[in-house]
Amino acid sequence: MATAQEFDILVLGGGSAGYSAALRAVQLGFTVGLIEKGKLGGTCLHTGCIPTKAYLHAAEVAEEAKESEKVGVNVSFESIDMAKVRDYKNGIVAGKFKGLSGLLKMKKITVIEGEGKLTAEDTVTVDGTEYKGKHIVLATGSVSKTFGLEIRDRVITSTEALEMDYLPKSAIVLGGGVIGSEFASLWNSMGVDVTIIEGLPHLVPNEDPSVIKIVEREFKKRGIKYNLGTFFEKVEQDSNGAKVTLSDGKEFEADLVLVAVGRGPNTEGFGFEEQGITMDRGFVIPNERLHTGVGNIYAIGDIVPGVQLAHRGYQQGRFVAEEIAGLNPMVVEDINIPKVTFTNPEIASIGYTQPKAEEKFGKENIETTEYNLAGNGKSSILGTGGIVKVVREKDGPIVGVHMVGKRMGEQIGEAQMWVVWEAFPEDVAQFIHAHPTQNESLGEAAMALAGAPLHG
Amino acid sequence: MATAQEFDILVLGGGSAGYSAALRAVQLGFTVGLIEKGKLGGTCLHTGCIPTKAYLHAAEVAEEAKESEKVGVNVSFESIDMAKVRDYKNGIVAGKFKGLSGLLKMKKITVIEGEGKLTAEDTVTVDGTEYKGKHIVLATGSVSKTFGLEIRDRVITSTEALEMDYLPKSAIVLGGGVIGSEFASLWNSMGVDVTIIEGLPHLVPNEDPSVIKIVEREFKKRGIKYNLGTFFEKVEQDSNGAKVTLSDGKEFEADLVLVAVGRGPNTEGFGFEEQGITMDRGFVIPNERLHTGVGNIYAIGDIVPGVQLAHRGYQQGRFVAEEIAGLNPMVVEDINIPKVTFTNPEIASIGYTQPKAEEKFGKENIETTEYNLAGNGKSSILGTGGIVKVVREKDGPIVGVHMVGKRMGEQIGEAQMWVVWEAFPEDVAQFIHAHPTQNESLGEAAMALAGAPLHG
Repeated sequence: MATAQEFDILVLGGGSAGYSAALRAVQLGFTVGLIEKGKLGGTCLHTGCIPTKAYLHAAEVAEEAKESEKVGVNVSFESIDMAKVRDYKNGIVAGKFKGLSGLLKMKKITVIEGEGKLTAEDTVTVDGTEYKGKHIVLATGSVSKTFGLEIRDRVITSTEALEMDYLPKSAIVLGGGVIGSEFASLWNSMGVDVTIIEGLPHLVPNEDPSVIKIVEREFKKRGIKYNLGTFFEKVEQDSNGAKVTLSDGKEFEADLVLVAVGRGPNTEGFGFEEQGITMDRGFVIPNERLHTGVGNIYAIGDIVPGVQLAHRGYQQGRFVAEEIAGLNPMVVEDINIPKVTFTNPEIASIGYTQPKAEEKFGKENIETTEYNLAGNGKSSILGTGGIVKVVREKDGPIVGVHMVGKRMGEQIGEAQMWVVWEAFPEDVAQFIHAHPTQNESLGEAAMALAGAPLHG
Repeated sequence: MATAQEFDILVLGGGSAGYSAALRAVQLGFTVGLIEKGKLGGTCLHTGCIPTKAYLHAAEVAEEAKESEKVGVNVSFESIDMAKVRDYKNGIVAGKFKGLSGLLKMKKITVIEGEGKLTAEDTVTVDGTEYKGKHIVLATGSVSKTFGLEIRDRVITSTEALEMDYLPKSAIVLGGGVIGSEFASLWNSMGVDVTIIEGLPHLVPNEDPSVIKIVEREFKKRGIKYNLGTFFEKVEQDSNGAKVTLSDGKEFEADLVLVAVGRGPNTEGFGFEEQGITMDRGFVIPNERLHTGVGNIYAIGDIVPGVQLAHRGYQQGRFVAEEIAGLNPMVVEDINIPKVTFTNPEIASIGYTQPKAEEKFGKENIETTEYNLAGNGKSSILGTGGIVKVVREKDGPIVGVHMVGKRMGEQIGEAQMWVVWEAFPEDVAQFIHAHPTQNESLGEAAMALAGAPLHG
């Protein structure tokens, strides 16, 4: 038998986490094998972040066309051609995929196509061929949860929704988290009659209560219906439509049901448990430095409990490469990872929400301010309301920023710098933000929290 | 004669600088009189930042409508109704004006309507009535320069352009700086045949050369014509059109000429020189802490040499109020003031351009990186190119950030934090930005400059 090909680092999974680990590893001088059974780029590129944001942009364009008369631009809105929206999305994805594939090739990362299985502490077997790694990085990602529902025809997940060439007249979205809310928002913009079913008491339940209130109000105003606080029990379909029955007996009917109840770790059948890796409900449980405790095996991305975001995957990928290189990289806690939901209005947050800050620091030890975008010139020009809410420790640093409003997702960068660098509002207040931008609203919030509001 | 009404602080001019000084002053416990002959809010609110950005948003909507088919949204573009664009703009301005007037009233700032003149070290006379100030703050703002051209009919400034209820078929824009480029951009989006005449060798000549190159290329691609490097000599008009003759004899004809050759200080006839205040070519020359050297008189905003921006005015207004209160506020140098030009593509910059950094620190002591937005997912979705250029001292902090691309103006906030807090690219690189946002491009640029690119 031929000697197995050996790499310094063997990465199982070519999504955001895996390819980021591979790229950082070659920068640091390691040889790298990257195993992927599907397409390089993974969920984020092919069925997640990128395609959904393309759809959301088409939705934004449709909304704007409908509202353009208000600003003096006369256009007549005719129709949405979903096959063309899909083509546009496919074009964006294809461009990024080509770029990524070319980059990995140029950097001399060995891409191994096929389904890999961990067969020893230092071995992944792909279609019968063994590959060895001095270090192994597990990055097998996540899949849509379905709670046992059969995904076909009128009951679909986001993956199928992104391949449709028509719009349903009506849709039920099971789940009011990030994915569900994004689809509800974009379908509504495109004229679909949407109802969200969320078992928890609120939409986007991980956000700050002030933000949730605005999102729920705006969704309602836009005609997105939602039923909160009761879980679904049953989903049925026939050739005419689909029906969702809640645990309280309430029924909802629509053309289509989108199952958006979250994503679970994709770890079944990869041999992780057989090699002694600690698992919990399908997740791999590494230590804080992402080591699994077995051999030189690390785990990164959506298989590790925490926020399931592509950029967390990027960060963890880079982290393990630097960790293996002995660079002792800094651990970035989940709380310091920025989060954006690309609904209309957009939601962006970093750090502690008010309730979480109260829990962590004590209610009496925090202060908050809410700056209303009604006072922000650029937001008025764009026709959006919203808020910037800043949470600080009393006489201490900013520990959370929570924003909602059209295009406010892009403001997360500055907010992130405040939180990760533990800035005081007073540090920010002395510098004046550019006028007239939406960015000013962050400056106004910081000045208000420092006791010296600009417009107040 | 009755005793003149006396204030702790008497502010001459109710524009951005003046009203900001007034608001900060009352926060600090002073009594304040604010003299304004026109409308509170000044140039920025009524004929500057806010109305132009409203027009630029209408232009953006028009552009988007024309390009919406690309993303699968079928609309037919019909026309632009300039009277309605103006109404939309007037609505935004009226809302902000109402808010500002209400705020000043609520804060018990005494607004004195009329034309004020400095008649003694502690006195401003308004229509024959004397008002005294223990401290006086001069904030009379700026006016469009016209180089002696007669502004009427077909030869206009931005002020008149914002009141027009029609679009010219063709326009010559005299001046390729911020205002000229913004009008060229918006008129082009609205279908006007635009030619810019700029005497300097480049459009937006204060920007970094890499940014200028892209702006010029994009303008050309959009069909905006420009003639660079030769100054105009003569502007003529008759009932059929207007003609501009350059110093080299070249002639340009169009329906309309927009004079956008900059703004000069509005200081004539206010009695500043008579009170012994140092002036230079119409500007007031205070010291670094904005004191004029005469009595307790300070000067702020566009009458002080430097970048003429509303937010610089805000900052200086707050500064003098805090200075008078003895709070010893920090001086913010012009180099640390963010600048945004709202053309398509947008331009945003803070800190040193590459040439200015080379001049200041020595060519061998700086490093730069240019991140191309072609690699940024959200920018591809929005259909925009552009760059993020970061300038650092070698082994030192980031000293400049220069960006160009659709919507990139909003990224200035994070860039500003880097520069004013003297962050190293390595400080930024360890935190991963939210995916997929345009904001990521800043993170990518910082990582590249730190020698550890994410996608490279």
